Amino acid sequence: MKVIITGGAGFLGTRLAQSLLARGTLADADGKPRQIGSIVLFDHVAGAAGSDPRVRTVAGDVSDTATLAQIVGDDAGAVFHLAAVVSGEAEADFDLGMRVNLGGTRAVLEACRRLPRPARLVFASSVAVFGVPLPEVVTDVTTPTPRASYGVQKLISELLVGDYTRKGYVDGRSVRLPTIVVRPGKPNKAASSFASGIMREPLDGKRSACPVPAATALWLLSPERAIDALVHAYELPAERWGADRSLNLPGITIRVAGMVEALARVAGRAVAERIVFEPDAAIERIVSTWPSRFETKRADALGFSRDESFDAILAGYIRNQGIRIG
Amino acid sequence: MKVIITGGAGFLGTRLAQSLLARGTLADADGKPRQIGSIVLFDHVAGAAGSDPRVRTVAGDVSDTATLAQIVGDDAGAVFHLAAVVSGEAEADFDLGMRVNLGGTRAVLEACRRLPRPARLVFASSVAVFGVPLPEVVTDVTTPTPRASYGVQKLISELLVGDYTRKGYVDGRSVRLPTIVVRPGKPNKAASSFASGIMREPLDGKRSACPVPAATALWLLSPERAIDALVHAYELPAERWGADRSLNLPGITIRVAGMVEALARVAGRAVAERIVFEPDAAIERIVSTWPSRFETKRADALGFSRDESFDAILAGYIRNQGIRIG
Repeated sequence: MKVIITGGAGFLGTRLAQSLLARGTLADADGKPRQIGSIVLFDHVAGAAGSDPRVRTVAGDVSDTATLAQIVGDDAGAVFHLAAVVSGEAEADFDLGMRVNLGGTRAVLEACRRLPRPARLVFASSVAVFGVPLPEVVTDVTTPTPRASYGVQKLISELLVGDYTRKGYVDGRSVRLPTIVVRPGKPNKAASSFASGIMREPLDGKRSACPVPAATALWLLSPERAIDALVHAYELPAERWGADRSLNLPGITIRVAGMVEALARVAGRAVAERIVFEPDAAIERIVSTWPSRFETKRADALGFSRDESFDAILAGYIRNQGIRIG
Repeated sequence: MKVIITGGAGFLGTRLAQSLLARGTLADADGKPRQIGSIVLFDHVAGAAGSDPRVRTVAGDVSDTATLAQIVGDDAGAVFHLAAVVSGEAEADFDLGMRVNLGGTRAVLEACRRLPRPARLVFASSVAVFGVPLPEVVTDVTTPTPRASYGVQKLISELLVGDYTRKGYVDGRSVRLPTIVVRPGKPNKAASSFASGIMREPLDGKRSACPVPAATALWLLSPERAIDALVHAYELPAERWGADRSLNLPGITIRVAGMVEALARVAGRAVAERIVFEPDAAIERIVSTWPSRFETKRADALGFSRDESFDAILAGYIRNQGIRIG
């Protein structure tokens, strides 16, 4: 089986590839495990292929239909569509967001439609599809009303994934990811970038600016659970999904203040004091429209899982990164 | 003021133009009436301009960005975007539906975005954005879950109209039209075509096949109220619309059986007996996913109006068409 990962040079794409290589198989439409023969990591920049001979990296424009058709070929079995311009960037550069986040999904779907047999596709959507006005708790039937271009583009992509699925062109599944923390590496232009930054930078001995108030509540998922969710979304039989191919994933709710306390608890007060609150109206405006409390009955019933606690997320990050405390 | 009507050669477009010409003005952003200097009827086929010197007809592809930019020019003040491939056709020809119903909206919005000052735009959406599962009564907060490509394309268009509006590129308003009856002329490829046909053809002395069961409930609006709604949607001040630019219009609920009875009442039993029930699974599958009962509090509060009764709709059609009964 050939697996395509768009956004394959990104954080989640790289992690997903590692996880798939370690597993070696993915469930097929009949539910039986099928050997992963190759993984194509597609991104706008060439990623690191690593030493595994099964991995190939390709650089190109995800919105270019011809490029996508070539990459998907006529033998793609599984597609994970993760490529996206992040929220802050999609808001700052409308055309770029439309081209990559909407045009990219269309190009991926069109390439899949041309396959001799429908591929399974997992699309990484986002809780940014929700926006004000919001109920106290978002449920499986809450109407998405995105109030930023990123969320609009993700929601439109979900609708396309749903309709291409209904038409039998692809077997698509869209999962709405919570904010993923703790991401290693550098800050990016996502409005949620700070959520990882305020943990990562202090643990790295650096000062970190938090652009939102301490009372801001967030809906979080660890990278490990996010990868689990993408694979589980893929492996679930089509009939378990039914007609509705969009799903709110489980997560945990925590305020920024609670994250700061957890950092102090796990790494010491001195580390937590490296977080400085420096309000940024543009970031706050976007983040304040995101929901932070969910009831995820459908995802729970489908077997998706959440992190145990924020302390557990933080401990996992420290362990995975080999960070020495104290 | 220059007014652009896409789908200008169509039934609603032609009626809208007549209504605007008769009014002579449209409210501007400051609420004051502004003279309509010209109306451009844009459609894929050249429409009839009639004798009014203010009207110009242009034939072209609504999804062609360059054509749209040329038509909108830098002096369009008002845009009514009605052009669409109808439901049955969008389902039968996926690519055509995507190109016209999604690509067309994008081209219109991009042309508007290039104007020196944001135009007001009214987009004719549809209750086909709703689909199963549906509550007993659709309200202003019911989540649209379209189950046919036409509804998906309309909903995506609404999302784009909303986001272009939020960005200040256009002052857009999307109204979800009920099924419009009674349409004069010939049957078309809309899944709802029969709803007009079963009144129009018998009144014209012809047999008419009804593809859905008599118990099928429909959500209806007359052409007159539809035109009123488009103009009212245009003239409402932006602050009355607020952030949510999509609206379920008022209508009336009636079963096909009730329509047949009304026809017998208004035109005689012999006329009503020209309706023959001939089930069509494809049509029924689409129509059965459409909602028929709504609570339209927001539209009511905004001053949109419904027809008095189906008898009144039917009487209006007979009067407007100059049909002699008995």
